[in-house]
Amino acid sequence: MIKQETFSVDPWSLRETQLDLDLLAQSESLFALSNGHLGWRGCLDEGEPHGLPGTYLNGFYEIRPLPYSEAGYGRPESGHTVINVTNGKLIRLFVDDEPFDVRYGNLVSHERLLDFRAGVLTRRAEWISPAGESVRVTSTRLVSFSHRAIAAVCYEVEPLSGRQRLSIQSELLANEQLPPPSGDPRASVALDHPLMAELQATDGYAAVLMHRTQRSGLRIGAAMDHLIDSPASILTEAHAREDSGLVTASAALEPGQRLRLVKFVAYGWSSTRSLEAVRDQVWAALISAKQAGWDGLIADQRTYLDTFWDRSDVEIDGDVEIQQAVRFGLFHVLQAAARGEERPIPAKGLTGPGYDGHAFWDTEAFVLPPLMLTAPEAAASALRWRHSLLGTARERAAQLGFAGAAFPWRTIAGQECSTYWPAGMAAVHINADIAYAAASYVDATGDAEFERGPAMDLLVQTARLWRSLGHHDSEGRFHIDGVTGPDEYSAIADDNVYTNLMAQRNLAAAAAAAEKYPDRASELEVDPEESASWRDAADAMVVPYDDALGVHPQAAGYTGHQVWDFAGTPADHYPLMLHYPYFDLYRKQVVKQADLVLAMQLCGHAFTAEQKARNFEYYEALTVRDSSLSACTQAVIAAEVGHLDLAFDYLGETALIDLDDLEHNTRDGVHIASLAGTWIALISGFAGLRYRDGTVAFAPQLPDGIARLAFTILIRDRRLRVEIGRGSARYLLADGDPLEIAHHGGPLELMVGRAEERPIPPVPQRPRPSQPPGRTPVRRRSSPPTPVPD
Amino acid sequence: MIKQETFSVDPWSLRETQLDLDLLAQSESLFALSNGHLGWRGCLDEGEPHGLPGTYLNGFYEIRPLPYSEAGYGRPESGHTVINVTNGKLIRLFVDDEPFDVRYGNLVSHERLLDFRAGVLTRRAEWISPAGESVRVTSTRLVSFSHRAIAAVCYEVEPLSGRQRLSIQSELLANEQLPPPSGDPRASVALDHPLMAELQATDGYAAVLMHRTQRSGLRIGAAMDHLIDSPASILTEAHAREDSGLVTASAALEPGQRLRLVKFVAYGWSSTRSLEAVRDQVWAALISAKQAGWDGLIADQRTYLDTFWDRSDVEIDGDVEIQQAVRFGLFHVLQAAARGEERPIPAKGLTGPGYDGHAFWDTEAFVLPPLMLTAPEAAASALRWRHSLLGTARERAAQLGFAGAAFPWRTIAGQECSTYWPAGMAAVHINADIAYAAASYVDATGDAEFERGPAMDLLVQTARLWRSLGHHDSEGRFHIDGVTGPDEYSAIADDNVYTNLMAQRNLAAAAAAAEKYPDRASELEVDPEESASWRDAADAMVVPYDDALGVHPQAAGYTGHQVWDFAGTPADHYPLMLHYPYFDLYRKQVVKQADLVLAMQLCGHAFTAEQKARNFEYYEALTVRDSSLSACTQAVIAAEVGHLDLAFDYLGETALIDLDDLEHNTRDGVHIASLAGTWIALISGFAGLRYRDGTVAFAPQLPDGIARLAFTILIRDRRLRVEIGRGSARYLLADGDPLEIAHHGGPLELMVGRAEERPIPPVPQRPRPSQPPGRTPVRRRSSPPTPVPD
Repeated sequence: MIKQETFSVDPWSLRETQLDLDLLAQSESLFALSNGHLGWRGCLDEGEPHGLPGTYLNGFYEIRPLPYSEAGYGRPESGHTVINVTNGKLIRLFVDDEPFDVRYGNLVSHERLLDFRAGVLTRRAEWISPAGESVRVTSTRLVSFSHRAIAAVCYEVEPLSGRQRLSIQSELLANEQLPPPSGDPRASVALDHPLMAELQATDGYAAVLMHRTQRSGLRIGAAMDHLIDSPASILTEAHAREDSGLVTASAALEPGQRLRLVKFVAYGWSSTRSLEAVRDQVWAALISAKQAGWDGLIADQRTYLDTFWDRSDVEIDGDVEIQQAVRFGLFHVLQAAARGEERPIPAKGLTGPGYDGHAFWDTEAFVLPPLMLTAPEAAASALRWRHSLLGTARERAAQLGFAGAAFPWRTIAGQECSTYWPAGMAAVHINADIAYAAASYVDATGDAEFERGPAMDLLVQTARLWRSLGHHDSEGRFHIDGVTGPDEYSAIADDNVYTNLMAQRNLAAAAAAAEKYPDRASELEVDPEESASWRDAADAMVVPYDDALGVHPQAAGYTGHQVWDFAGTPADHYPLMLHYPYFDLYRKQVVKQADLVLAMQLCGHAFTAEQKARNFEYYEALTVRDSSLSACTQAVIAAEVGHLDLAFDYLGETALIDLDDLEHNTRDGVHIASLAGTWIALISGFAGLRYRDGTVAFAPQLPDGIARLAFTILIRDRRLRVEIGRGSARYLLADGDPLEIAHHGGPLELMVGRAEERPIPPVPQRPRPSQPPGRTPVRRRSSPPTPVPD
Repeated sequence: MIKQETFSVDPWSLRETQLDLDLLAQSESLFALSNGHLGWRGCLDEGEPHGLPGTYLNGFYEIRPLPYSEAGYGRPESGHTVINVTNGKLIRLFVDDEPFDVRYGNLVSHERLLDFRAGVLTRRAEWISPAGESVRVTSTRLVSFSHRAIAAVCYEVEPLSGRQRLSIQSELLANEQLPPPSGDPRASVALDHPLMAELQATDGYAAVLMHRTQRSGLRIGAAMDHLIDSPASILTEAHAREDSGLVTASAALEPGQRLRLVKFVAYGWSSTRSLEAVRDQVWAALISAKQAGWDGLIADQRTYLDTFWDRSDVEIDGDVEIQQAVRFGLFHVLQAAARGEERPIPAKGLTGPGYDGHAFWDTEAFVLPPLMLTAPEAAASALRWRHSLLGTARERAAQLGFAGAAFPWRTIAGQECSTYWPAGMAAVHINADIAYAAASYVDATGDAEFERGPAMDLLVQTARLWRSLGHHDSEGRFHIDGVTGPDEYSAIADDNVYTNLMAQRNLAAAAAAAEKYPDRASELEVDPEESASWRDAADAMVVPYDDALGVHPQAAGYTGHQVWDFAGTPADHYPLMLHYPYFDLYRKQVVKQADLVLAMQLCGHAFTAEQKARNFEYYEALTVRDSSLSACTQAVIAAEVGHLDLAFDYLGETALIDLDDLEHNTRDGVHIASLAGTWIALISGFAGLRYRDGTVAFAPQLPDGIARLAFTILIRDRRLRVEIGRGSARYLLADGDPLEIAHHGGPLELMVGRAEERPIPPVPQRPRPSQPPGRTPVRRRSSPPTPVPD
């Protein structure tokens, strides 16, 4: 776990003031910069020491064979693995021929600061070389939101101890050596030397390297150019070799003088275009970046983020850590998605190679919900990526013997990459999650064009899948058997409540869409018989209920299973999947991550308030949170059923997952879904936001630890500002047509500029539910309450 | 499918009179010789052409790494694969320098004959070489039942067309080139060059080759010696190289003269002994074989088989094919087990490399039942092999988090080799199958020493497993959740009826054993609390029943699943697992192989006659028989519930599985369990034999196609001869104390030498149940009834 003390707790930035080499890989993930298209891990400019070097292009991968000892129909024969592409971050410094390496000499001072509003990573270091020469290094790095293909660094060095010969080497480096893989199943497969050199060239201070992958047939170009500024005369030289482009600048400087190098890096890739076309594309991007200039890039970055924060900021009084964490989280969610432009949002964004760079269902279930209310164009773009996979998903459904579309459990380019089918192939709920996100996006934005286009395509093809997956029993009830729900400690069960309810929504939404857009329906060959069959299946959907216990079983028969022997499980045997076989986990009542509880969040209409409270208590006692996709959901339902302090604890867990490295794998990249979960825990949890079919409902309740929660969301093209205090909530529509909302069930008509304030009803008192021994979330210390604005 | 016409239908042999090169691999399996320790596939003496060369030593394997793309706790990291060891069968012939190769020249006549009483494979060929020289070749081959380490060949050649120069090369050949693997999941992994040479030597006409495996650390020695007999002077030469030992004999012969070579081959292997010790061991075996001489080996072979057939033969009037098949099957079952001596009985015996040479549950559930009543010492030896794995099985149980012992699903040396845990790890019924076989063996033989020793150890450790696997629900019923039963088209289900009933037997038997042998119980630390808990669990065992349908579901909830779309399944989509994902198979009602129906055979007491009939009809409509472990079980229950003609059809299917290559994989070895199933279908089916806890019950009924069924079994040290005709059955105790049996429920006291005859009651008439479309077994043509003896 990263010790919190290495970071300062600032509301708008993450600042590190000591360099702990053991935590380098984690800090590289936290300080990673990305625009959703291009990602640079937060490695030191000079490249070494490093934890895990990483430069990623969204969608750029290699194919690798997937081995099996025993064959099985429908298993993928090859998978995708994200590649560490050409490293353009490298700037090596030599002080009187001594390489600047913090492992040697004396690092007098160190600071790295990630600024969430400026969108830059700055670094300041003072270093005394082993030979006793002292320098100050300052670098500022950005991955541009406005120039999708561009990253840039402004690097300055200044002698502190008399005249020095300083050399700066700026490099493009392909096929970097990577540390050996960890053996953690959540990490990635390291590919050795994945890029084949095709072309290298220099031109003045510029260099370009072109490479191609061996099996996936993707071509990548990386180019760099430089502005070099020095008060003394400088000598420069440029080289390019197969895997390396190098521009060196040398000068002898006095104290007070600075050598300054601005490095522009452009990336381009394609699966189809020629070598020359990709090369020209990166040159063009480079020229456009130079045209903007360093100051221009900085200004554009700020403007982009100002717009984002204006419609997305969340303010918290009473908990400075959470205040920082929610902005850190939103910043990384934005970085993962902003310029993805019909590419996936991987589980780790572009901050690390974890999970081989694959995207999963958490994109739709966790990452898109905050995005669609804060950066809806990025959410639309991620959904358009899914839509672009429909052809592949329809082929997959046909291969598996089903109608419609079957989306991959884990993928980069659309093909299924999961070799463990009881999780991958059977977790068909991903299809309902995608349909849910598409429908929610339409609800959130009112984007009619998307609704009648991509959303309708997605709804229809997934509804077809559900109709062919399920069946009616002799009494006419509709069942979906043998599937795996969100909880990965269960599998191959009948009538998983989450899956059935989400499929029900999916089927009903598809039928409604077919009714709303008859021309599109006929284009998709949906006839009235078919949409009637969807409606019938939705109406007849089985939702198992255990009358004796008065709770919903996670799936049929679940509550009859033996309860896991929590008392007999040593603390160091978590996560359980590393110490017990799936065989035993699956057959017992033990929950890795919210499943039935997530159903209560996403399909709340299907449960009474009393059922929610009882179900929550029941599953609390079984849930071990061995997945990062759980705490935020537990926070939301804890808040809904009145366990505000417990919700606050879960908020802390989801918010600090990476800042505190709670899962011990932040080194492989940050947990984008869990970071998004911070927003979910606050907005769906404490503000109680639910919206569906045109309604927008809030049910705010604050825990003792939060004195005030204020935030803006963008709903149906209007900015809505919500401010929640201890006793009341205030709603202000910043622009657009009037909006009808609900506050704790009471309707409220909002007009632009006219704030409405409503009292918050008292919370029902219930005893705090208990978790498995040792699995209770860390209690968040309540900060002293700050005064609440009226 | 092997066309039946290439074989003649003889009661005591399998004879081939034409050589079809496309069927070579199949015929090599059918004509394979083995004694359970050493196996030679029935390849042509000259080695080429071949289908799949193969020489196997029981328990001799290499270790290979098992790859996974996604890790999982408890999965085996390496597996075992049977090795094609040093080939001692090879005898190459040169006729005037032209190699005898049936692909060239003209094969004027060809015969191979496997004699079930003599235990030898003879071959006769007349061949005209491309140069026009004509020879007659005769060879007789045996793998000795009496000399465990010895195989031998008598090879004779005689010129037919004038004086010829004849050379015979007798060879030992290691690391033979094998054809590339087929991709069929039931085949094996081919290991390239698995043996490392350690020593080679010659001495006169003798040669020895010593090798070692790379990873499993096993050492093998193979030696040969020869007696050469020629009317003309012969020139001989012996060589030994790394992977080859060669003895060549040349002579010039006139028509009417014969060159005769008797080849003795000895094998030895060890995981612990030194090179010298193993070398000396094979020399010693070789000398002992030469001491017996060819005629002695032949005579011993006949004596061994006379004894076997005397207590095991099955005679059938009315169906010559089945008559041949049941003896062929018993012969191969004996070959697989006779001299195993605490080694496994692999699924293919030692007739081929299929399933990597692994042993599965079918040893205990299908192969041992006939063996324990015909060759009980071989059955005991196989059970002692399981007993020898107890230590490994206990470690495995501990690793998986369970008490007692967890036996491997597939193995050679005891370690789990299954990488697909939903079948392998979850198919825990193998433990009850082993316990069942141990208890049945004691029942069949009255072997008290085995009962209080190995059987008790096995019962206790498997009972402990069941007790820790299962749990009581709130109403005190005992459940076993999340397991896979025999049917491999279902997995991870709760309360599989087969598993629960077999576990119930297991628990009750362990408790009874602890009561019977208190000293052993205390040695095994079984206290009264523990055995009481076994009895309680057995008494409280849940057996799900579907009241609405009036049938037993295969597992809880099974009958609520969608029925497979049989009508929409093309005929060429069988076996289904090669064309549909397990995901879809598991969630629907479709049965690969008898599961609930096998429960009705092995735990018949748990079902009423009416339930058996209804259940059988229900599962008939769902069972596709994509496994060879089904038809015999369906035959038994079909016979029990009165569908005699259907039982007869299933008898045909199990009996002809290899003779007709019904599963298209006889090339990889014969199906020992299905061949054993022929006996089961006849004796447990048409004779209705059931025995348990000291009772022995028959309920004979013959189908129209069988006029008379007569057989001998060895029960509790007595030979019992049973002769069943159309209207009555006759029981004759050949030796031993009086025996009480039941005939159709009526008690019958048998005294030595006094035949008892009883009438057979009429069969209840029921409509013939139907199978899935296209999956009805081939109707056996009824032969004209032959007169029934009085």
